[in-house]
Amino acid sequence: MPLSLPDGFSAQTLHAGLRDDGDDVAVIVSARPCSAAGVFTQSLFAGPSVALSRKRLDSGYARAIVVVAKNANVATGPQGARDAEEITALVASGLDIPPDDVLVASTGVIGRPYPMELLRATLSALPDAPFDADAVAVATSMMTTDTVPKTAVQAAGAARVVGMAKGVGMIEPDMATLLAFVLTDAAVEPATLDRLWRRAVDDTFNCLSVDTDTSTSDTAVVLASGAAGPVPEPALSVALREVCLDLTLQLARDGEGATKLLTVTVRGARDRPQAKRVAKAIVNSPLVKAAVHGADPNWGRVAMAVGKCRDDRDIDPDAVVIRFGDMEAYPNRPDDKGLARLAQIMSESHVDIEVDLGAGAAESTVYGCDLSAGYVRINAEYTT
Amino acid sequence: MPLSLPDGFSAQTLHAGLRDDGDDVAVIVSARPCSAAGVFTQSLFAGPSVALSRKRLDSGYARAIVVVAKNANVATGPQGARDAEEITALVASGLDIPPDDVLVASTGVIGRPYPMELLRATLSALPDAPFDADAVAVATSMMTTDTVPKTAVQAAGAARVVGMAKGVGMIEPDMATLLAFVLTDAAVEPATLDRLWRRAVDDTFNCLSVDTDTSTSDTAVVLASGAAGPVPEPALSVALREVCLDLTLQLARDGEGATKLLTVTVRGARDRPQAKRVAKAIVNSPLVKAAVHGADPNWGRVAMAVGKCRDDRDIDPDAVVIRFGDMEAYPNRPDDKGLARLAQIMSESHVDIEVDLGAGAAESTVYGCDLSAGYVRINAEYTT
Repeated sequence: MPLSLPDGFSAQTLHAGLRDDGDDVAVIVSARPCSAAGVFTQSLFAGPSVALSRKRLDSGYARAIVVVAKNANVATGPQGARDAEEITALVASGLDIPPDDVLVASTGVIGRPYPMELLRATLSALPDAPFDADAVAVATSMMTTDTVPKTAVQAAGAARVVGMAKGVGMIEPDMATLLAFVLTDAAVEPATLDRLWRRAVDDTFNCLSVDTDTSTSDTAVVLASGAAGPVPEPALSVALREVCLDLTLQLARDGEGATKLLTVTVRGARDRPQAKRVAKAIVNSPLVKAAVHGADPNWGRVAMAVGKCRDDRDIDPDAVVIRFGDMEAYPNRPDDKGLARLAQIMSESHVDIEVDLGAGAAESTVYGCDLSAGYVRINAEYTT
Repeated sequence: MPLSLPDGFSAQTLHAGLRDDGDDVAVIVSARPCSAAGVFTQSLFAGPSVALSRKRLDSGYARAIVVVAKNANVATGPQGARDAEEITALVASGLDIPPDDVLVASTGVIGRPYPMELLRATLSALPDAPFDADAVAVATSMMTTDTVPKTAVQAAGAARVVGMAKGVGMIEPDMATLLAFVLTDAAVEPATLDRLWRRAVDDTFNCLSVDTDTSTSDTAVVLASGAAGPVPEPALSVALREVCLDLTLQLARDGEGATKLLTVTVRGARDRPQAKRVAKAIVNSPLVKAAVHGADPNWGRVAMAVGKCRDDRDIDPDAVVIRFGDMEAYPNRPDDKGLARLAQIMSESHVDIEVDLGAGAAESTVYGCDLSAGYVRINAEYTT
């Protein structure tokens, strides 16, 4: 089902040949300058495309985003920086806007330069392009090992908030994540947008983990065209959060090799960082994830994962309660009949684990998936 | 090939019925009190067996160890503490020694009480047992998902050092690991033994990781009977380290589902903790492990894993060198021919990754294995 972009935005997808079939380059553009905010990977090996986009967002404004699939442009040295500059210059020229208004993002193989001849030839066609791509076409063109395009939409007063995202492996965001682009026609100042964006990302993308590996290319950007005029800040805040949460759940369900959505909520923590730390230890444990995959009612692995947080000495194992859905597994341990019921709960397509630390009032929910042989298959043969 | 215990030690293995076939309980005893040292899991959910053994080692002396396979005695509440006490009392009675001289260790499923009726019946046979088990028989009786028993031996002057270990999943030791028991007939004071033991464990077991999950039952204990008299401290130190390293390599090679040994050495670090932190990020990355499994020359994932150590802002990506064996992969990136050679290197049964951070003189080597579909299979159906 097509999903139109908010007022003021248009997009074009192109086939440059980075993948054999289908479009692999997307260009999103606004009819006028947008308030813009972004968060990026904290990786020490962040690529030159990330560095360029981060620098250009310092102004609080942007107008276009170019996304290149299948190649991360990371660990590519000075050549990678020149290539990122040239790509944005080609897009700026094709759109007749200043290069400083163009952001660039890409994910894919690390350590290979962009195929610049292909990209130059493809981007030279921009001035004649119809710019009639919808959000689904853009999300589809960004995919690497994703099996489905991820989009989401919410109303915010008279405005719309439309999101597109990709990323199913190398996913342990920290301050930013994967590729996620959210567009809105709401009118909002850059400083306000930046504040709302960071809050939305922190509760959603930053609570997602597929495999503990942090991407070098994480980029989450929001652009606000203002075409729909101002909207109440709470409405925009909620819409941004809902769009990000919707995309986060889609990303978790499509985690590499995943067959199930796994959500973990930790309550009763001393503070939110503690709640998130414990929840991440559970959602990231390969043994918990493998048990969820096999619907093996081995709830003791959740206790093991809580125990890994050894710097949290204020957690008292005797005060901890572990539940799967509405079923308690610890301290009231299930008998054989209970284990059979637990296996049933774990065979659902969404497994929800709740842990109460009994130490305070803070909580955090994180999002992940099970660990399957499919994850290994995908990643044992990625570049060959 | 049988491996006899050092002078002064004897052992018996027994079948209590925790597993269908084969012995599942081991008792090791010394003819006289031993200097003893141990390190244990730092897990918040450490089990009552761990707590009891840790407390009893405060004296610096011990005389017997009882090992129960297939059941961790963790998250079992007050019943678990009573059971651990009773098992050591039964062993003490059977051997006619004080209960405080008996240590207990076990690994296996978390959250199930010991099958005490089976254990009482089995341990009551101890007084009539021949105590003729060798190190291989003891190591075999301790196995859970291990595919081979792990033993090692070294001379230390006139004395011998004999080690036994188990553990191939839930392996990310921190201060201690898995189950490892090392016996020597060297005469050595408890304080010296403790110092030598911690140093040996820190360089070996504590540099091992199969899956980032820290066991609730990690126990590494050394007993010195003194039957061979005193030996030079350097000889004992080297022999302890070599036995621990030998066992560590065997454990890594037998990691759940593993088909390859993976070693990672980080040099040129600011200090040893930084070297170990970066090396662990690489050896623990599921994407690096999956690439090693498939011999996929996707070296960029090593750069990604270095980049994850985002608190180490003094690491400059431009100063980093990445090698597989003797082949450089970054910054001099391999061409197509080079990638074919890299795939060849990665198809060996031992893959060695070396990273130079170019920031200092410290280094650390860590030990792990590849990630295979076998790991998922083993752990998706562990208790069912």
